[in-house]
Amino acid sequence: MDLPFVRIKGGVGAPRGFRTSAVGCGIKDPEKKRLDLGLIYSKEPCSSAGTFTTNRVKAAPVKVSQNALRRGEIRAIIANSGNANACTGVQGLHDAQSMCAAVAKPLGLRRNQVGVCSTGVIGLPMPMMRIEPMYGALIEGLNKKNGSAFAKSIITSDTHEKELAISFDLDGTRVRLGGCVKGAGMICPSMATMLCFITTDANIPSATLRKAVLECVEESFNRITIDGDMSTNDTVLALANGASGMTPMRRNGKRCRQFRKALMWLMTELAKSIVRDGERVTKFVSVKVKGARTYLDAKKVAEAVCKSQLVKSSWNGGDPNWGRIIHAIGYSRASIREELIDIHIGGKAACIGGLQAETPMDDLRAIVAHPEFDITIDLNQGRADYIMYSSDLSPEYVDFNRSEYAYWKQARRDGLI
Amino acid sequence: MDLPFVRIKGGVGAPRGFRTSAVGCGIKDPEKKRLDLGLIYSKEPCSSAGTFTTNRVKAAPVKVSQNALRRGEIRAIIANSGNANACTGVQGLHDAQSMCAAVAKPLGLRRNQVGVCSTGVIGLPMPMMRIEPMYGALIEGLNKKNGSAFAKSIITSDTHEKELAISFDLDGTRVRLGGCVKGAGMICPSMATMLCFITTDANIPSATLRKAVLECVEESFNRITIDGDMSTNDTVLALANGASGMTPMRRNGKRCRQFRKALMWLMTELAKSIVRDGERVTKFVSVKVKGARTYLDAKKVAEAVCKSQLVKSSWNGGDPNWGRIIHAIGYSRASIREELIDIHIGGKAACIGGLQAETPMDDLRAIVAHPEFDITIDLNQGRADYIMYSSDLSPEYVDFNRSEYAYWKQARRDGLI
Repeated sequence: MDLPFVRIKGGVGAPRGFRTSAVGCGIKDPEKKRLDLGLIYSKEPCSSAGTFTTNRVKAAPVKVSQNALRRGEIRAIIANSGNANACTGVQGLHDAQSMCAAVAKPLGLRRNQVGVCSTGVIGLPMPMMRIEPMYGALIEGLNKKNGSAFAKSIITSDTHEKELAISFDLDGTRVRLGGCVKGAGMICPSMATMLCFITTDANIPSATLRKAVLECVEESFNRITIDGDMSTNDTVLALANGASGMTPMRRNGKRCRQFRKALMWLMTELAKSIVRDGERVTKFVSVKVKGARTYLDAKKVAEAVCKSQLVKSSWNGGDPNWGRIIHAIGYSRASIREELIDIHIGGKAACIGGLQAETPMDDLRAIVAHPEFDITIDLNQGRADYIMYSSDLSPEYVDFNRSEYAYWKQARRDGLI
Repeated sequence: MDLPFVRIKGGVGAPRGFRTSAVGCGIKDPEKKRLDLGLIYSKEPCSSAGTFTTNRVKAAPVKVSQNALRRGEIRAIIANSGNANACTGVQGLHDAQSMCAAVAKPLGLRRNQVGVCSTGVIGLPMPMMRIEPMYGALIEGLNKKNGSAFAKSIITSDTHEKELAISFDLDGTRVRLGGCVKGAGMICPSMATMLCFITTDANIPSATLRKAVLECVEESFNRITIDGDMSTNDTVLALANGASGMTPMRRNGKRCRQFRKALMWLMTELAKSIVRDGERVTKFVSVKVKGARTYLDAKKVAEAVCKSQLVKSSWNGGDPNWGRIIHAIGYSRASIREELIDIHIGGKAACIGGLQAETPMDDLRAIVAHPEFDITIDLNQGRADYIMYSSDLSPEYVDFNRSEYAYWKQARRDGLI
């Protein structure tokens, strides 16, 4: 890794001045064996920025956090997994607000200095009777550790927590940047079913942080797809508390560009880690489109290929099926000319000028047998390009997503429905 | 069935004056046990009309048939299954044209009076050395039977042939209308991987036939989805030879409206039969959207729901998961208001005003356990509606589509690659 920064231990707890905590309330399992409620808190005031799902059906915590973020002064985030608090009406809004209020008071914050996020099943009321008794333990548990427990508390169908932290110099001051994500299904461009929390002890004004976050999300989280489904709860929240001691960053200055570069790397790695941990995923495929007339054309082609059930099924089978790739390119609505299209798989020609290339099929099969490979699509029409990160579609994915009935039964036992 | 027409035996061979034939060339299996080359021929001159895939990557036979159709005088159709003749370049165009020429000559037709269709694997050269020796047997085999052998010769992953024929009176003259389809995967609105052939002994000018075909395709084949993938080869071709003895139909006249009604019913039933026979499909779901502000909004909602991998997986699991339905409605980009949305499953309320309805979950589960059920989504915002026919997504679908390697091995044995 030839990068101007070094990896350090942990995630959101790694930057100075941040405290994290996590408890098990029994939302995910009645025995409370799994962590499902987490808290991030900065001792110092923070700049904050974020971005949210573009789904028109927005979960209650999304609405509450969007509102809180207006002043860019969020200093704490409470998050739960197991229930998305989506399609829960006025009661859901009330529950999300009460989660903010419950941690704001003992931390000496205003309610709109607390962000709230939920992820899990849609349409069931929040089991507040499980959450409320745990607020005390959650706040008492705040600690200086690296944040891995928090990262665990937000996962649902993920197989493991996903976090990353780096440190780097900004004009002589050591700065730390940490992050964690969750998300494994309902993953699609324009925000996945995904929560991402970023913390840093850099000193960066909210407006500048916001610009950096939006730019980096566009080239990281908006470039991944697992199943083409977009969630009601997607949230990225970034907090910067300046605890590194640096002077405030100037917008568009050199330090700002360096910070943006580090944030881009961190977010891209976190985004890729979501695809790699996708529900029952066996392949990680980078699809690079180049030679498009316009950026939008390149994007349309990448999305059509990365979302095609047939293309994804063939990847699962280790089949270097360029015919299915070109058929998806054809229906992408991008401006293309079939006879100009080249497709390379792992650097080897699969299709040249719209026709079968001479690479022996077994060579291509050997590439697609790997768990990670690249596909390059050259439209040979212009200079625009686009990259996306996708996964295969496995029979096990479908099997895994066949029923959420267990959640409904639990909700009935809880007397919620 | 309270309809102003009666079902008769067979499909494209049922109308008067049509002859059909089918042979096994060994494209689908080297032992030639399966029929894979078929022919439809009308003794009388025909009006003809058709519609083709909107995929920008079009197979060679699509280009050749589109060109032949310009004069609206197609009288014969040659079709093969097992190889799509797509992404095959100049050689593919030559092969498609030579298929037309080979049957045109002995039938005394011009080459552009013959339509050609192919369906099967993409990107492999046509095995002409298997097809050419069989032209003689194909033409000699033309017969007055009902056309079931032809319907068999065009199927690929379909589990059975799909055909239908009806007869009805047009102002005192008995008229027959027959059709057959193939298609089980790569099925998506704006034409599926689907071939549909319609024959009739009605007397209808090409322009009038064309208008009726386009209108009926819009409300039948463009309303179905299995996997959201759009093919390179989709074709609907309709031939009308006037052999019933009726006088020519007037555009927009009463007989034309009656004919259109019959064609709509026939095409809708054929379209539904494709979904029911979809690759490893276990559920047939009619999704009715109503109360939309605009037709386009209703369409966007129906398509988002019918294409969502998560919604389709839940149907496979017999899970009446309205949360996933509303999340797909949310990302459909239609104008919606969450708090106004009602969702009924099999007539029972699952979601009212964006919230969980009071119907016991087990009642809804009993409905979704059926192989066929309806979902009604009322947006309560306007008066536009839209209906789509969809299927579930099964683990077996993915498993089935993991690899087409067997085709490549066969092509290598044939010396084609």
